[in-house]
Amino acid sequence: MLPDVENETAVRATADVFNSTVASWAIAAAWELGALDELNEKGSLNIDDFAARNNLHTPSTTGMFAAMNSVNVVERDGQAVVVGANFAEVFRTKSFFHWLVRGCSELFTQMPSVLRNENRIGRYYRRDPKAISFACRDINAKCFDPAFWTGMENLDYSFSVVADLGCGSGERLIQLAERYPGTKGIGLDNAGPSLETAASDVAAAGLTDRITFGELDVRSMAPRQEFDEVDLLTCFMMGHDFWPRESCVATLRRLRELFPNARRMLLGDKTRTVGVPDGEQEIFTLGFEVAHAMMNVYIPTLEEWEGVFGDGGWKCVRKTTVQGLASSVVFELE
Amino acid sequence: MLPDVENETAVRATADVFNSTVASWAIAAAWELGALDELNEKGSLNIDDFAARNNLHTPSTTGMFAAMNSVNVVERDGQAVVVGANFAEVFRTKSFFHWLVRGCSELFTQMPSVLRNENRIGRYYRRDPKAISFACRDINAKCFDPAFWTGMENLDYSFSVVADLGCGSGERLIQLAERYPGTKGIGLDNAGPSLETAASDVAAAGLTDRITFGELDVRSMAPRQEFDEVDLLTCFMMGHDFWPRESCVATLRRLRELFPNARRMLLGDKTRTVGVPDGEQEIFTLGFEVAHAMMNVYIPTLEEWEGVFGDGGWKCVRKTTVQGLASSVVFELE
Repeated sequence: MLPDVENETAVRATADVFNSTVASWAIAAAWELGALDELNEKGSLNIDDFAARNNLHTPSTTGMFAAMNSVNVVERDGQAVVVGANFAEVFRTKSFFHWLVRGCSELFTQMPSVLRNENRIGRYYRRDPKAISFACRDINAKCFDPAFWTGMENLDYSFSVVADLGCGSGERLIQLAERYPGTKGIGLDNAGPSLETAASDVAAAGLTDRITFGELDVRSMAPRQEFDEVDLLTCFMMGHDFWPRESCVATLRRLRELFPNARRMLLGDKTRTVGVPDGEQEIFTLGFEVAHAMMNVYIPTLEEWEGVFGDGGWKCVRKTTVQGLASSVVFELE
Repeated sequence: MLPDVENETAVRATADVFNSTVASWAIAAAWELGALDELNEKGSLNIDDFAARNNLHTPSTTGMFAAMNSVNVVERDGQAVVVGANFAEVFRTKSFFHWLVRGCSELFTQMPSVLRNENRIGRYYRRDPKAISFACRDINAKCFDPAFWTGMENLDYSFSVVADLGCGSGERLIQLAERYPGTKGIGLDNAGPSLETAASDVAAAGLTDRITFGELDVRSMAPRQEFDEVDLLTCFMMGHDFWPRESCVATLRRLRELFPNARRMLLGDKTRTVGVPDGEQEIFTLGFEVAHAMMNVYIPTLEEWEGVFGDGGWKCVRKTTVQGLASSVVFELE
């Protein structure tokens, strides 16, 4: 098994792919454990000190920083760590790493089983819904929020009750309630564990009288009397679940029936990239598209989205491109 | 969240770390699903055809090849795939990727929890023992076997009964039985699921009368009468579990008591690298060392190994360096 000495480039590149994988897990962990925030704030830390302050196992913590050093997220000299050449970009994109290796790890690990047609029945894959809503809260904040608040400013009426479809951690509803006094919010999601987090965050914010949650599947939910009051819909990072096209048309029409007084819907999502070579995909895209293929969810292109609203009974009045996340957009529908 | 245009290198490097992670899962899956072997043999394949022949979900299978294309393991043009610049090296090292993302995925995914001292009690982590023995069989075949067979040729006596400590899939015992007619083998391992595979492989090879297995922990096992017949010990990729030093001395001494007629032990393992910067670690090392830190297993250096045999009651008569795996060695002890 002697490596071909003429192939040193491939040997190094392959080791880098391996080390990058260990590093992705380290990035997600370093974020959760507060190391990325501390490095972002102070620029350096000492591993022994960081481990002691946070009651962490020192050899493992050293390994976490070694993995990040292997791909220049940090520079490590023994136990001394400073930010590396890729730190700023990794800090910006940490939630994508977290989504991949904490939220979707089991899905990707089971790839050999998930690809076999005979296994693709029932609940044939698992992800970690709490981890996904943790990551998506940051993805929303970093990527979708600017375009979302633009969409809110563009509203030509004052809303009273907003329903957030696929509300995840409830963060959007909390922010809306705080920014728009007197309004109410309804969060709908089929991920029970996320709603537990959401409910406790709402309680902590003192908003239990204004924000309520329902655990249900937006695509198949029954009418509720409280939906009659809803005059604004928001839906972020879940619209792709409405597809394929025929189902999406049906769901968009159904939303009009379920929420007869909704005057506008802000729908933000990542769309399928078109014409980008695999090796030039920006961060997140490759993982997002492969994961959804495995989950049997079709990701529509921007063009496909734009062609579905009319048949679904909505009119797109404005479209804002999301900065920092490839092929992502917020539609303002009415 | 607009990326700094002056930082394009970091943006690309960070996306590559992300894509590499998806690719590692794809490499492990492609190996299990037969795609790597087919590409190694034929140099090309068509994704639709490969999926149809193997009854795989085509969009997901396309995603698997797209992920490998993103790091030049293959080149993909639509559904046409040919081997890429890194294919040969990835094919050589596929078992390391498999060990990492199939065998140890849950351990790495749980890094934030595993690093916290308060969680490090009882069975605080999980790995996939079947996946690990699947990977280790190939790691043994590719890396350790040449040095192992050299060690066998160096034996100055004809052995009758071999005990393989940490036998995993039982592959080594099957090979020994086939190469040395009339000999017997005893496989010892604490991973029940691996032993199930091992027992069925032994049955398939028609060797049930010559090879038996025991599910037990080599470090704490009680004497057995059958051990008296053992005149050769082999132990690959598990010697590090004997450490720290004090425990290793005790285990080495205990092995002499448990196997009083063992004349030689062939012990092969990967040792801790010394003085290699994190970013220059060869494949496997970073994952191996971080994983064992998390599992609270000390990986000794080559020097530490060489300094323990005397106190353990063994004499190292020969040492063979393993090619293609950093800091790995086979000791011939008597």
